[in-house]
Amino acid sequence: MMGSGVFANIFSLEHAYAATDIEGKTVRDELEKIGYIGTETPGDHPIGAYFESHIEQGPILEDEGITIGVVQAVLGIRWYDCVVTGMEAHAGPTPMVLRKDAMQVAAKIMQEVVAIAHRFGPHGRGTVGMVQVFPNSRNVIPGQVKFSIDFRNMTDALVDEMDAAIRAFAKQTEAETGLTIAIQLVSDYPAVPFHPDCKDAVRRAADKLGYSNMDIVSGAGHDAVYMAGLAPTGMIFIPCKDGISHNEIEDTLPEQVTAGANVLLHAMLERAGC
Amino acid sequence: MMGSGVFANIFSLEHAYAATDIEGKTVRDELEKIGYIGTETPGDHPIGAYFESHIEQGPILEDEGITIGVVQAVLGIRWYDCVVTGMEAHAGPTPMVLRKDAMQVAAKIMQEVVAIAHRFGPHGRGTVGMVQVFPNSRNVIPGQVKFSIDFRNMTDALVDEMDAAIRAFAKQTEAETGLTIAIQLVSDYPAVPFHPDCKDAVRRAADKLGYSNMDIVSGAGHDAVYMAGLAPTGMIFIPCKDGISHNEIEDTLPEQVTAGANVLLHAMLERAGC
Repeated sequence: MMGSGVFANIFSLEHAYAATDIEGKTVRDELEKIGYIGTETPGDHPIGAYFESHIEQGPILEDEGITIGVVQAVLGIRWYDCVVTGMEAHAGPTPMVLRKDAMQVAAKIMQEVVAIAHRFGPHGRGTVGMVQVFPNSRNVIPGQVKFSIDFRNMTDALVDEMDAAIRAFAKQTEAETGLTIAIQLVSDYPAVPFHPDCKDAVRRAADKLGYSNMDIVSGAGHDAVYMAGLAPTGMIFIPCKDGISHNEIEDTLPEQVTAGANVLLHAMLERAGC
Repeated sequence: MMGSGVFANIFSLEHAYAATDIEGKTVRDELEKIGYIGTETPGDHPIGAYFESHIEQGPILEDEGITIGVVQAVLGIRWYDCVVTGMEAHAGPTPMVLRKDAMQVAAKIMQEVVAIAHRFGPHGRGTVGMVQVFPNSRNVIPGQVKFSIDFRNMTDALVDEMDAAIRAFAKQTEAETGLTIAIQLVSDYPAVPFHPDCKDAVRRAADKLGYSNMDIVSGAGHDAVYMAGLAPTGMIFIPCKDGISHNEIEDTLPEQVTAGANVLLHAMLERAGC
């Protein structure tokens, strides 16, 4: 999303040029090398609408046997670190009732993260992807557990409610267990609803071309997120095998790619008044 | 427990001599250096009974305000590795109902480990001390979680029942979730009950000397575990501050150490018929 971020003035051209890969090569130097450095001022190019077609990166279209996803919005995302602090102790001599086992309390909160996502369905997501246990020894009751929480939903208001729900649960669990639970927000990406006219254009194009289609949301970020601040924006999803992406086994059938390109073309033609 | 292990022929003298520290220094060389290498054949020294006094390494005596613990047994210990295998997927585009989240299933089993320890009380112990999450990334649903299980109880029969309970729960959870759960035994230390006459001798000594006392079990291993195979054996526990041991802040009051030593003396005198 570097190009769209510069185009939409989310960050500066100089910031993007200065970015380096792990070998220290800069974006500026590499663009110069391939003759792509250009002279136009980013954002100068006027646009009436923006459409993007993409593989779903999820399993829904494949699961439902549908060819085209009419993307309604990109989910709002909030990332947290949660730290549960108990009391490190020897797994042998410490009776169950006298323990302050940070892993057990963390396990409760981890399950509530998922329960909250289900409660705030159908687009709620709750994931604990990263866990660190201290001291992480087989015969020591964990004294501290740190883990990540990833909450997503269709609107910022719904993510706010998920935020309030996990904080309330943590407070109640602190009171019940006597262990300390700290939840800290580390990143916040607002939800981006797409433009009604663009969503309609995508749906009409799919219908006209005879492709089965359904409303869908995007759980991951895309260029369309930044572009939505500049012009009416819409997205088209096509299926990907087993919902796998960012991986060499990523796969989509040629006829599905064709369908996505055709819908993109016809949605753009409609917006262009052709 | 190296000395008692050689003495009781659990492992050979050569095995112990060959052990090295992280700098590669051997036990044999270091014993020679300090003049402790000796010539007696291990186990040759005849013994009529064995008593050992030790800090509790747990919080019970302090919690109960009791000076002497009459140790009934050393708990049987079984160590396992549990591996839950689900499907790694992007935390955004993957709806809750289509996930195979290994961390969530692992969390269920972790809680059952503790629930089983409570069910097989009062001496049951269940601990998950070590956890590894793959790939351990904030926005990826964990595809695999590996964690340790430590079960302990007063008798091997009780540990057998705990073993059966967690395996049954894992089987049921596999059926309910569709994820794969593998539980592998990695170590097994049988329970060691102490000799009735030695337990009586410890209790009588404490009573005679006017020290408050209670029956207690040892959750950790001690030299007495190996010695119990050679002769009637007993152990005496004294309190330690906050149950903390193997740590520089380990602490016991001088009068508590005195009490432990006095009980040790009088229990030995009784067994010696003095």
